[in-house]
Formats: sequence, C-alpha cells, structure tokens
Amino acid sequence: MKFTILTLFPDMIMNACKESILGRAISSGLIQLSVIDIRKYARNRYGAVDDYPFGGGAGMVMQASPIDEAISEALGQDPESKDIPVIYMSPAGRVFTQEIARELSSEKEIVLLCGHYEGVDQRIIQERVTDEISIGDFVLTGGELAALVVMDAVSRLVPGVLGNEASSEEESFSGMWLEYPQYTRPREFHGMNVPDVLLSGNHAAIRTWRLKEAIRLTVQKRPDLIREEKMTKEEKKLYHQVLEELHES
Amino acid sequence: MKFTILTLFPDMIMNACKESILGRAISSGLIQLSVIDIRKYARNRYGAVDDYPFGGGAGMVMQASPIDEAISEALGQDPESKDIPVIYMSPAGRVFTQEIARELSSEKEIVLLCGHYEGVDQRIIQERVTDEISIGDFVLTGGELAALVVMDAVSRLVPGVLGNEASSEEESFSGMWLEYPQYTRPREFHGMNVPDVLLSGNHAAIRTWRLKEAIRLTVQKRPDLIREEKMTKEEKKLYHQVLEELHES
Repeated sequence: MKFTILTLFPDMIMNACKESILGRAISSGLIQLSVIDIRKYARNRYGAVDDYPFGGGAGMVMQASPIDEAISEALGQDPESKDIPVIYMSPAGRVFTQEIARELSSEKEIVLLCGHYEGVDQRIIQERVTDEISIGDFVLTGGELAALVVMDAVSRLVPGVLGNEASSEEESFSGMWLEYPQYTRPREFHGMNVPDVLLSGNHAAIRTWRLKEAIRLTVQKRPDLIREEKMTKEEKKLYHQVLEELHES
Repeated sequence: MKFTILTLFPDMIMNACKESILGRAISSGLIQLSVIDIRKYARNRYGAVDDYPFGGGAGMVMQASPIDEAISEALGQDPESKDIPVIYMSPAGRVFTQEIARELSSEKEIVLLCGHYEGVDQRIIQERVTDEISIGDFVLTGGELAALVVMDAVSRLVPGVLGNEASSEEESFSGMWLEYPQYTRPREFHGMNVPDVLLSGNHAAIRTWRLKEAIRLTVQKRPDLIREEKMTKEEKKLYHQVLEELHES
C-alpha cells in the first residue's frame, strides 16, 4: 500500500517513519511512503505558500495553487489515479475510528494533505479533496501528527506489517471491548501477584476471565462503546454478571 | 512547561519534535522535553524489556520493573514530584479532548508513558500511573504518536508558544463550532471566487457570515457537538436560520 503525504514539514514525516513497526514495513516494501513538500510549488522566491485571510483575522491561510500542484504530482498521470482518495486532515472531518482505518486499508493508495496555520483555502477542499478526517476533538499545530496517526493505524492492518498476524485482530477496538489486563514476569512485583487463573494452564478459564475483565473495564471506563445487540450469548451473560457485581459492591 | 516521555523509541520522539511550532517552542525554552529510553533499564544483556504474557496469547507485554525505574528517573528526588501526572497512553484511557488539553496545560510538568506490543504489565498501571489517556477509538502500533499528539495539543496552549496569541482561541474546538471556511489570494481560483462579503470591508457582516458558516458546517458534519443551552442569543438565532435554510433546500 502506498501513502503520499503533502506537507510543509517533510523531514518531520520522514523522521517519524524511520523506526518501529512502520519503519520496518517501509524498508521491507510492504508500505511505500512518498512525501511531497508543498513549499516546492511556492509562487515566489521566499518559498511562502500562505497569505492573509480575506476578511481579516489572525493567522495565515495556505494558498490553493501550491496545494493543487502538489496533489497533481501525487496523483500523477495514471488515469486510474482519479480513484485515489485525497484526504485533508481537518478538525471538520469525520472522526477517525478503527472502522475507517479498516476501510482505508483496502485502498491501494491514499493521499494525505496536512494543513497548517489557520487551514487551507476552501476552494482547494471543494475542488480536489475527496474526504476530510479528524483524529479527534482537539486542536493540533498542524496536520502532520494526524496524518502519521492515520498512516500508522491503517498500515498495521496491511497483511504482513505486524509480524504476528494474530495481533491485529485481538485488540481493544477491533471488537467492542477494551483490552483485558496483561501480566508478564516476574510473578510478584512489589507485593502484587499475577492472578492465579493466568497460571492455571486452564485455557477455557483464562479465556473467560479475560473476556470478563475486558467487559468490566469497558463498563467502568467506556460504557459508550457497549452495544448489547452486538454481543454474543457468552458476552451477554458475562456482561450481566459484571453489572450485578458492580451493583453489589 | 516540561514533558518527559518514556519510550522504546526515543529517536522517533526527538526527531518529530525538531520542527515546526513544537521545535521552536523547545529551542526557545518555553517547552522542555526530556526523553527516557525505557530499554536503558533492561535487566538482561539483550536489552529486552518485554516478555510473554502469563496465560498465553499473541504478542509480548512490557515488564513492570524497567518502566518503574524509568518513572523514578522521570520524577527525580524532588518531594513535590508526587504531584506530577504520570499518564499512560492507552486505548482504555479517557478520550483526549481540547478540554483535557486545557486541563493539562496548567501543569508545570507531565510524564507520558508509551506502551508497545500488547501493552504493559497491569501492576505498573496500578502502582504508578495516575491517569490513562486515549487519543481515539483506533489502534496504533505504539503510544509514541499518541504522546506526540498530546504534547502538541497541550504545548500550543502554553502562553507564547503560538506566535500569534489570538490563534489559540479562535479554533474549532475551543468553542462549540467547527471553523468557518477560509480564503486567501488570489480572488479567483479555477473559476471559483472568494465570497463577496469577505471583500466588503464590513467587519460586522464578515463576523456574522463566518459565524453562520461555522454553524452550518457543524450542523452538517458534527451535530453531536451542538449544545443549544450553551449558545449565545446571536448563535441561537443564526442556528435556527441555518436549520430553516437546510430544511427548505
């Protein structure tokens, strides 16, 4: 899968992608990353690609033309390129979720446009942007970290990127539940012991314990994620046990 | 304000913070960044700080001891350090919002712990973590990008970090509305003109137009953000105008 990121800070993107799982996926060729410096298309000798907003106000707005040319470079001449999503990282976009990550991971290629300052000229959004995504209800200094977040969440769903294929399926938001608590060696740490069941070797009991703990955590911390109609019979039973236990305590 | 980030990928954090507004805030001393490599506290000569989960399952879990020592280094000997928030970047955390960014920006110092693999040993969360934050309902390969997002959103609220003080107040999620559309030169781009009102010089009219467009955008894209009881009289009036216009069209 290929990501093209349009940005004023190409080094930030390149540097952040050098390490860890993403870095490995790029060196192995499973993920391709192309970074285009929007400033390359500045129309003046100072490299400025922003200007004052019409109507006044604080801050600067990124101009349409340099972005327009950067998008053209990203899409290239291939007639099929019209199907490539051009996504503007914007607080006004749809809120990014694991479902959107899954949806994007089925694309061959996506283009991510990072804004800065007070955003980009509305006309470039109108003409060339096919989707707007926000990573959450907070304000960042620019779209770069948002683009990296999307790239990371999408990449790990591309087959082969996670060494251990099982890993991408078991996590918190793949299903409805937060992840159950994990323990590793040593058995005792500062007087706290690993729960006995995890040492029992009884796989069925371990599975049930983990599911119940995941349910308990979700009830306590993120009840908004819970959809009773989506639960399996087993989940429903444990869910009601958890509710009762919490009610009694 | 000081950020200490505990991570297995210190270079990724350092590199991502070299540029842009965050980079400037760090060089100017408005923001201090300390990055601690958790691997430094590995108990074996291979530098491993993770181990298999008790009870089985895919992936590895980060051990409690190295993190424990890294947190101790971060907090230092200062008796006041017990008040420093130690925040674990976790999908099970409270969901990060602009309100939490504002809350954290009043701290003198915060510690951000980045997990990797299948998370960290539950006992370190129990013993040393004071808060858990998730940046959204999606799964990342590690906590590093989440920590950078929190650091970025919090830093820009620290006085002086944004060159233009006005900028941090005007944005989308500081109030209830998404940001209004912005336009900059040229007046015409690919046949699309800047709305006349923005060229009128009539400041009151511009202000009303922008507020109404912000309201329209929010109604269309993020109705979940709208709280009628929090609106000013003017907002309420424009809000009902927008609803009527959308109803008619």
